[in-house]
Amino acid sequence: MGVTLNCDMGEGFGLYVLGDDAGLMPLIDVANVACGFHASDPDHMRKTVRRAKENGVKVGAHPSLPDLAGFGRREMKLSRDEVANLVIYQTGALKGFLDAEGMVLNHIKPHGSLYGMAARQEEVAHGICDAAAVFGVPLFGMTGTLHETVYQARGIPFVHEFYADLDYAPGGKLIVTREHDAKDPALMAEYCLRALRDEEGTASDGSRFPAKAETICVHSDTPNAVDIARAVRAAIASWH
Amino acid sequence: MGVTLNCDMGEGFGLYVLGDDAGLMPLIDVANVACGFHASDPDHMRKTVRRAKENGVKVGAHPSLPDLAGFGRREMKLSRDEVANLVIYQTGALKGFLDAEGMVLNHIKPHGSLYGMAARQEEVAHGICDAAAVFGVPLFGMTGTLHETVYQARGIPFVHEFYADLDYAPGGKLIVTREHDAKDPALMAEYCLRALRDEEGTASDGSRFPAKAETICVHSDTPNAVDIARAVRAAIASWH
Amino acid sequence: MGVTLNCDMGEGFGLYVLGDDAGLMPLIDVANVACGFHASDPDHMRKTVRRAKENGVKVGAHPSLPDLAGFGRREMKLSRDEVANLVIYQTGALKGFLDAEGMVLNHIKPHGSLYGMAARQEEVAHGICDAAAVFGVPLFGMTGTLHETVYQARGIPFVHEFYADLDYAPGGKLIVTREHDAKDPALMAEYCLRALRDEEGTASDGSRFPAKAETICVHSDTPNAVDIARAVRAAIASWH
Amino acid sequence: MGVTLNCDMGEGFGLYVLGDDAGLMPLIDVANVACGFHASDPDHMRKTVRRAKENGVKVGAHPSLPDLAGFGRREMKLSRDEVANLVIYQTGALKGFLDAEGMVLNHIKPHGSLYGMAARQEEVAHGICDAAAVFGVPLFGMTGTLHETVYQARGIPFVHEFYADLDYAPGGKLIVTREHDAKDPALMAEYCLRALRDEEGTASDGSRFPAKAETICVHSDTPNAVDIARAVRAAIASWH
Repeated sequence: MGVTLNCDMGEGFGLYVLGDDAGLMPLIDVANVACGFHASDPDHMRKTVRRAKENGVKVGAHPSLPDLAGFGRREMKLSRDEVANLVIYQTGALKGFLDAEGMVLNHIKPHGSLYGMAARQEEVAHGICDAAAVFGVPLFGMTGTLHETVYQARGIPFVHEFYADLDYAPGGKLIVTREHDAKDPALMAEYCLRALRDEEGTASDGSRFPAKAETICVHSDTPNAVDIARAVRAAIASWH
Repeated sequence: MGVTLNCDMGEGFGLYVLGDDAGLMPLIDVANVACGFHASDPDHMRKTVRRAKENGVKVGAHPSLPDLAGFGRREMKLSRDEVANLVIYQTGALKGFLDAEGMVLNHIKPHGSLYGMAARQEEVAHGICDAAAVFGVPLFGMTGTLHETVYQARGIPFVHEFYADLDYAPGGKLIVTREHDAKDPALMAEYCLRALRDEEGTASDGSRFPAKAETICVHSDTPNAVDIARAVRAAIASWH
Repeated sequence: MGVTLNCDMGEGFGLYVLGDDAGLMPLIDVANVACGFHASDPDHMRKTVRRAKENGVKVGAHPSLPDLAGFGRREMKLSRDEVANLVIYQTGALKGFLDAEGMVLNHIKPHGSLYGMAARQEEVAHGICDAAAVFGVPLFGMTGTLHETVYQARGIPFVHEFYADLDYAPGGKLIVTREHDAKDPALMAEYCLRALRDEEGTASDGSRFPAKAETICVHSDTPNAVDIARAVRAAIASWH
Repeated sequence: MGVTLNCDMGEGFGLYVLGDDAGLMPLIDVANVACGFHASDPDHMRKTVRRAKENGVKVGAHPSLPDLAGFGRREMKLSRDEVANLVIYQTGALKGFLDAEGMVLNHIKPHGSLYGMAARQEEVAHGICDAAAVFGVPLFGMTGTLHETVYQARGIPFVHEFYADLDYAPGGKLIVTREHDAKDPALMAEYCLRALRDEEGTASDGSRFPAKAETICVHSDTPNAVDIARAVRAAIASWH
């Protein structure tokens, strides 16, 4: 199994468009599809699943905290059961559209603050596992976080993810912002290659930290996401 | 296959309670479970599916227009694709909870105005069929309506439903109100027995109309739903 | 009082952007500000009201049906009281932001399907008047519609509105679509000038119909809204 | 100005009922009216404001985090500006209904987790002040908390509030739960009288802490709220 390029897709809502899904889909291997809680709605989900199918892209669920106005990027206090049920609901909804297109669910990757909360709060990580176990699919996550520990201990297959378009603090903590900035595609590709080759990430001050990259993520709402995706895709190809 | 008693269940939301689900579940055969668009949320759905399982009750999806404040009882203009995608989303979400409890999806019964719109608007009825075909389950509906015609023409298994706690206008049109009134259990049971025995419904003026009752519905938000369910259950038993 | 150019503004939501508000605000006289039901949220409302203030633009409320996913462009069945309360809620919320910036409420202009429903359903038009009477402001509407009749009969000041970027059917019925197309700015300006000078609108087949243009509207979600606004502004100036 | 009895009112939503507003309204002096973010909708707000008017009860805004499913009782991370704008939006909306009934806004009392967050997070407390300053009304809050410090420093009139139906931890921290339990009315009245007379609250272990009671709160969603309100009302009367 080679390294894959994944992207958060289908993050429009109603009339609103976010990200160049048409430009990105042909460049990626795996789409994390928004499920209506931070972005998307049933019509966008249908369209996104179809677009993935046409491009031979695998589809995973990208469930979120219930916060459309905050794009799932504002932390909320939730119990383990609330997290589990939120993720089951959203993943089940996405699976309906996969059933409609004759596709299978590839994985679950929590979105935004839910992803980050699971990296620090054990109960949240367990809630996500409770849901993943229902669907029997792997979880995407970051090397060296609490969510890696919990997911692995629960026996849920874990896919190590590296971010191509976000800054890392020294030590490897991801710096999550409400809106994403454009990044230099060549530099980002270099960081990805380093992660693949040396299993090291590069923090914003240039220092290194341990990182694995079984899958590399670009966000569709990063302004120059298509350029970054193209550069990272080339980096992955050069390394294989 | 005998006649079943079905009930709209799980229509609470957050702290809000609606209907005596604990009292009704032991009395019914089939639960139509709210999917979060007119009522319910992921936690209520989980609890309702579990309660159904404990009582040996089959579970179908009860998808709605997206209108929590209006309880899905205010008509909205939607295209066929919008309807199909709304129903796929909600039914998929419910199926997630059924997967979690090792249960199968029994049927789909559209809620409130969506049910009624499908009885008059061909495109809406087709949208519902588009979704039912994805899941391969029967649809519940009313004898002699446009939705019966469309569902049957599309080859979706159709279960004829009779309402134990709503008034019918002369000719058999269902009178749908935003809130439901209490009904006389004995009279309602008599009407149900007549529907079973004579295939005739009884309108509010006493006149009759053709009706089939393969399944009989009581609404959990009818004030004396438990008493009606008990009386109707006895009527079904006496007829078998 | 001269003819004004009005524009629906502040129709972003969370991370989503819709329309070039920064480009349009300097070109217009009056902003109809979205109030959170078809678009916008408290942060967008604050920003939009501030931008209007900086540009010396007057602000009216642009209340909608409660349908964010449908951008307020899907009809819903509502009672007169429901309409009145929806409009009071949204207009009051906007007034909070006007209070914060030391501005006054200029008018109310219902959005999308609510605007259209008031042109055909008397109860809806009355509900809107019930709300306008609370705030003591004029209503914007179209010449020759039922809402003109009702608003005038109720004694609510009525401002005749002409649309610069929508098609009219022969006879003058507005053709409302979920998404708007780009229009030829020169042709639109010509139609506006004709409405000002001759009190006649121009339908999509070239035929004429009676129309008054006390205020002219451009939608911020029309793709080339800035170009149209500039051309229409010049047309208004040439006619004064 | 004497001590008042206040109550969170109008916390139904759509078909859902929560609390016995009809029973409580005649017993209280001041209603904190839900504004649609943790509970209520425009129709419930209208009805609640009218009921307050009929009973000569003053009305304040009871704004919340945007979390209907969590009843505003799940903490969210928000910036100062987000808090300010949320409170302005909701308070403005309520003021629309007060305008409709010829009433004035009496105060603002943040709901649930927003109230608690302001007791611990300075930026949240400032956001609430930013909104209160727009409307020129007092804020309700708890003696000895960070929100008291911030509100007082900002010069916003502060009304010391004591809770008749919630448990306090030793030291005076309020114990906030998602759902409220019934309480012994006589004991609660005794605690209130002690707060009035001795300026001391009583913690769940019987220990005392400094507390002022310029206004005493009963929650409408406490199961025996009417009985508690009656007992507390008598206690206030006996002390005056």
